[in-house]
Amino acid sequence: MAGALRIIVLGSAAGGGFPQWNCFCPNCRLAWEGDPRVRPRTQSSLAISADGNRWLLLNASPDLRQQIYANSCLHPRGAARQTPIAGVFLTNGDVDHLAGLLTLREQQAFTIYGSASLLDQTKHGAFGVLNPDLVRRLPVALEAQIDMGLGFTIRPFAVPGKVPLYLEGESVEIGAATDTTVGVEIDCDARRAIVIPGCADVTDDVLRRVEGADVLFFDGTTFTDDEMLRMGLSQKTAWRMGHCAIDGERGSLARFADSKIRRRVYTHINNSNPILLEDSPERAKVEAAGWIVAHDGLEIAL
Amino acid sequence: MAGALRIIVLGSAAGGGFPQWNCFCPNCRLAWEGDPRVRPRTQSSLAISADGNRWLLLNASPDLRQQIYANSCLHPRGAARQTPIAGVFLTNGDVDHLAGLLTLREQQAFTIYGSASLLDQTKHGAFGVLNPDLVRRLPVALEAQIDMGLGFTIRPFAVPGKVPLYLEGESVEIGAATDTTVGVEIDCDARRAIVIPGCADVTDDVLRRVEGADVLFFDGTTFTDDEMLRMGLSQKTAWRMGHCAIDGERGSLARFADSKIRRRVYTHINNSNPILLEDSPERAKVEAAGWIVAHDGLEIAL
Repeated sequence: MAGALRIIVLGSAAGGGFPQWNCFCPNCRLAWEGDPRVRPRTQSSLAISADGNRWLLLNASPDLRQQIYANSCLHPRGAARQTPIAGVFLTNGDVDHLAGLLTLREQQAFTIYGSASLLDQTKHGAFGVLNPDLVRRLPVALEAQIDMGLGFTIRPFAVPGKVPLYLEGESVEIGAATDTTVGVEIDCDARRAIVIPGCADVTDDVLRRVEGADVLFFDGTTFTDDEMLRMGLSQKTAWRMGHCAIDGERGSLARFADSKIRRRVYTHINNSNPILLEDSPERAKVEAAGWIVAHDGLEIAL
Repeated sequence: MAGALRIIVLGSAAGGGFPQWNCFCPNCRLAWEGDPRVRPRTQSSLAISADGNRWLLLNASPDLRQQIYANSCLHPRGAARQTPIAGVFLTNGDVDHLAGLLTLREQQAFTIYGSASLLDQTKHGAFGVLNPDLVRRLPVALEAQIDMGLGFTIRPFAVPGKVPLYLEGESVEIGAATDTTVGVEIDCDARRAIVIPGCADVTDDVLRRVEGADVLFFDGTTFTDDEMLRMGLSQKTAWRMGHCAIDGERGSLARFADSKIRRRVYTHINNSNPILLEDSPERAKVEAAGWIVAHDGLEIAL
C-alpha cells in the first residue's frame, strides 16, 4: 500500500472569510474581539498530496498567500524559484475559489484544471499575469477521471449550483447540475474522498455519489436557509446563493443521515453560520450527528 | 489645528510579498525559517486618515483581507455591515495594487479613485463583483486636487513608469511619465505627504515635487538595478520593471540626498532587496542616510 493520502484544509470559510472585512454580525463581532470560542478562518481551499512533496490545490482562495505561509508543506525549498504546488483544480468560478490564482504569478510553471469555460476566465484582464508559456490550462470534462501525475486521480461531477455572481444576468437559474459547479472524487488506491464545496441541493444523484466514501467535505455555508435574511446581512437565501442549508427537512444533515461515509466534514462555512461558535447548540447538533466542523489547518489522512 | 494626519503602512513589500510564495532566495529562505532578522511583509498599501474614523486606502493589495484583520482601525463596528474604509485610490494597475479590490466585495458602498483607464479595468471579469450601484468609480485627472471628504486632499501626478505586466505588448515603453504610474500628494492643513510606490527614474520633476514634504514614501523595490538578474530570480532589471534602484549614481539614495524632506521612507520593497535583512550593510547604508525602511504596521503621524 502506498503512503497516506493527505488532505489539508487551507481555508474553511465561505466567500469573505471569517471574520468578513465589513461584517459585524454576532459571530464576526466575537472574531474581531478575539473571543476564543470562535476561530478566524480563511476562504475555502484544500491541499491534496499522496507523497507529502507535491501538492494539488483544490481551488485558489483570495487568502492563498497567507495559507501558503501557514502551511510549511507548501513552502518553496532548495532552489531560487520553486514550489511544491503542482497544480490547481477549480470547482467553480466564484471569487473565493478563483482570486488566489493572482497570487500564483511570478513566472512559475504549474497547471490549472477546470471546465473549459472556467479556464477561459483565467486568461483575461489581470489574470493575464499567468503567462500561458508557463501556466498550462487543462480543460477537464465532467466524469473524466484525470491522473494528476501525483499518485491520485480526480473526477469532476456536476452538482446543483449556479453561475458565479459576476456572471449572473437579469435572471439566474438555480439548481441546474452543469459544469458551472462541480464536486470532485479523489481516488488513490482503494481510498476515495469526495469534495463538494458548493451544492444547492442534496439530490439522490449526490447521495449515490458519496455512498461508501472514506471522507466527504461538504458545503457548510449556512445552518438555515434564511439566516442571512433574518440577520439583516443579505436579501438572499442560501438557495439563491447556490447553497443547501445544513438544517431543515431538505438540509444536508437530514439528507446524508443514512449515508455510509467514514468521515464527514462541513467546510466553506459562512460567517453567519452558528456552527462557528464552539459552544452553540447548532455546533453540538452537527457534531452529535458525526460531522466535523472544518477549521484552517485540519488534516485528514486516508 | 486639526488632529494628526495618520498614515499607516498596511503592506511594505513589492509584488509577491515577503516571503514570496515561490521564492527561496537568501532573504526569503530566512523568512520561511522565521529568522528574527527579517520581518515578513505583505504587499504594498497605505491607509490614510485625518480623524482616525474614516480611512482612505492607497492601493488595494492582494493581502488586503489580512491587512484589515491586522489593523483594528479598519475593523467594522456598530452595524451588521459597516466599514471605516471610505475609498481606495489606485496609483497604477499592477496586480499588487489592484487585486485587493476583490476583497472589498459583499455589497458595501465605497469609492474607487484612479485614472479613467485604470478604473475601466475594475469593471470586467471577476471585478464585476463590485456592483456599480454601490461602488462608485471616480476618475481623477493628473494634477487635479481632489477633496476626499475626509479632511485631506489628494493630487495625483505622473512619474516615470510603465504599463502593468499583463498589459505589456510586444514592445514596452519604460520611463514615460503618463497616468499609468502616478505618485500622490496628500495635503492636510499645512502638512504635505508624498507617496510614490513605483517610479522608474528620479527626474528633476520628481525632485521638485518632493521638496519640502513632511514625509516621502518612495519606491524601495531593489537596492541595485541588476540584483534579480544576479540572483537568478528574473531576467529583468529594476528599470525594465519600471523601478529605480536605491543604490548607484542615478539611484534614489543619491538623487534625494540634498532634498529637504522631513521624513523619508522606503516601501514597496522586493524580497530580493538586502535592506530587508536588519543587520546587512545595505540596511545600515540607507538608515545612515536618514531613510526609514518601512515594515507592516509602521505609522507616521503628521
